[in-house]
Amino acid sequence: MNGSRAYLDHNATAPFLREARDAMVAALDLSGNPSSVHSEGRKARSVIEEARRNVADLVNVKAEQVTFTSGATEAANLALTPDYRMGRGALVMSKLYVSAIEHPAVLAGGRFAKDDVIIVPVDGDGRIDLKALEIALTAHDREAGLPLVAVQLANNESGIIQPIAEISAIVKQSGGILVVDAVQAPGRISLDLSLGYADFLILSAHKMGGPKGVGALISNSTLLMPAPLLRGGGQEKGHRAGTEALPLIAGFGAAAKVAKERLTKSDELLAKRNAVEAIILNQAPDALIHSATVDRLPNTTFFTIPGLKAETLQIAFDLGGVALSAGSACSSGKLGTSHVLEAMGLGKVGGALRVSIGHETSDVDLAVFEKCLADIMA
Amino acid sequence: MNGSRAYLDHNATAPFLREARDAMVAALDLSGNPSSVHSEGRKARSVIEEARRNVADLVNVKAEQVTFTSGATEAANLALTPDYRMGRGALVMSKLYVSAIEHPAVLAGGRFAKDDVIIVPVDGDGRIDLKALEIALTAHDREAGLPLVAVQLANNESGIIQPIAEISAIVKQSGGILVVDAVQAPGRISLDLSLGYADFLILSAHKMGGPKGVGALISNSTLLMPAPLLRGGGQEKGHRAGTEALPLIAGFGAAAKVAKERLTKSDELLAKRNAVEAIILNQAPDALIHSATVDRLPNTTFFTIPGLKAETLQIAFDLGGVALSAGSACSSGKLGTSHVLEAMGLGKVGGALRVSIGHETSDVDLAVFEKCLADIMA
Repeated sequence: MNGSRAYLDHNATAPFLREARDAMVAALDLSGNPSSVHSEGRKARSVIEEARRNVADLVNVKAEQVTFTSGATEAANLALTPDYRMGRGALVMSKLYVSAIEHPAVLAGGRFAKDDVIIVPVDGDGRIDLKALEIALTAHDREAGLPLVAVQLANNESGIIQPIAEISAIVKQSGGILVVDAVQAPGRISLDLSLGYADFLILSAHKMGGPKGVGALISNSTLLMPAPLLRGGGQEKGHRAGTEALPLIAGFGAAAKVAKERLTKSDELLAKRNAVEAIILNQAPDALIHSATVDRLPNTTFFTIPGLKAETLQIAFDLGGVALSAGSACSSGKLGTSHVLEAMGLGKVGGALRVSIGHETSDVDLAVFEKCLADIMA
Repeated sequence: MNGSRAYLDHNATAPFLREARDAMVAALDLSGNPSSVHSEGRKARSVIEEARRNVADLVNVKAEQVTFTSGATEAANLALTPDYRMGRGALVMSKLYVSAIEHPAVLAGGRFAKDDVIIVPVDGDGRIDLKALEIALTAHDREAGLPLVAVQLANNESGIIQPIAEISAIVKQSGGILVVDAVQAPGRISLDLSLGYADFLILSAHKMGGPKGVGALISNSTLLMPAPLLRGGGQEKGHRAGTEALPLIAGFGAAAKVAKERLTKSDELLAKRNAVEAIILNQAPDALIHSATVDRLPNTTFFTIPGLKAETLQIAFDLGGVALSAGSACSSGKLGTSHVLEAMGLGKVGGALRVSIGHETSDVDLAVFEKCLADIMA
């Protein structure tokens, strides 16, 4: 254990997979522009299309439903717009409805004016208030346009899983469009979009062991699409201009393939998470594990140790060899109370720590964590 | 020469540099999110900041003037907006003025409504009509907002270099803001932004031997900036949300360093381009080298062989082992007459071919090109 560090911050960014690394390194040596018609260009194109099939397979859709972006933030900014197209017709979304615990990339509202973004509250466990959502959508003025709703499948801080089937039913009844941020789901929970629970899914490669800087917007049909955010060349069937990030896309495809395979091992992941929580409760018996009784990701533990500030604990863990986080890593070294905790009515508990693990997490990692926590509590 | 191909399409995408490859491979193994405050996060952050310094050095500005984006297309969509901020104040650009031969990412007009984009003509060599620009800017209604002007430093198809000092003087006199697409310049012509010829520069890594999927918007001050295009987290000082594409940015930094060094060898590049043009005129004496008498990039030859269609020639070259292009590679395998040729009044010459070379181009490449052209002409 000497000198070894435990990386328990997978929800910030997952360890880079060997499979993604190999695919990227192979793609590095392809010289062509994927839009060029010569042989070098066509070779580059074929790598992109193979990756597109792998990402499509992860969520059980066809390859043409996948639009690559520079990450989940761009995918959110692409999807969250008043201007949609249904085939050749225009479709206007007049208001955006989001939950109070969304990722900042969704909370910022994309291309909606600030006044057109409506925040729907969550309960003490962080689950969206379905009644409040229903009331808000019933009050929606359909003359002005359709309602656009954006919710996370699983929260990045607490790991809670939203009741997506119920949310989907409410949105459908209102005639609205549902965008689901599924960034934290791959390899952890099932993501079969052919079930029809969403109109759009947002994915990020680096949260599933792929490279940073690439993501996707997956559509449930090829007819309904948002107006492009990046305009210029005709790449991505006109939905997203710009030369494709070839090596990143290759790495994303490889990571998506692994994430799909890993889903069969989510029981093992859950056993490790339970071990993490046993360690916490053993070393700090009065610790609060947030949202413990509701549906959660099998890799995330969000907890508070009463009387100890999360930010201080985070630094102590870092010095002790454990990388974990106090809140999310969504913006430059920003500290302060988590908006997720606040929305759950827990703004005054002194913050919370997040342990987020993965299939790579080993017994050694857990031992490092246990020793570090014991030292802190001593 | 058996089986060897000559890649003469550097303006579509330049051969990937060993230095960029090494930097990317090293960055692949950094596990942290650059926004995380733990040790892993800080290591990732330091790689990004070193790359930022290298990109800043290429254009002789300070690191804080560099905003990384997912490529030149995103940088153009970021810069071409009516909404600017000067410090804390808002500044409105009411019209966008672009030349007729801009890259599609600029011609599309970014976040301007179609009616607010004004196209300024070019002359028969592709140089912007300075008188027309001056008249357009004099007629600009300043009550509605400032004029925003976007021009290329060097054209991607013809290689012509715009008279940027004259353009800059005209824009300054009108009180406007000048965005310069310098994508084709690095390693070929000087790019010292401290001379003050532009308010913003747009760069793309893969055009200078770096990876695809990353670029930058460089500002001439840290006060004047466009409203963010990607909103969410606070990355890039709030100018561009989203987890940074760590390995791509590392590769970009390494490529920028090489591009700066290569500038001292532009005479060698020019000698190679002259050799290309001697081969063309030797094999096809009636070939037209476009814009031959004006300032051009030392790596680009844009030519027409009367009576032979460019698209047919391009395929023949590809089969014969030479990758070059007919027009640009800016959108998916799109064929058709080049808008650059059309704007130059040459819409009816049957298209043109572009040979674009680099410091890597060898005598063997030139021999492959010569043999291929001889076979085609025979």
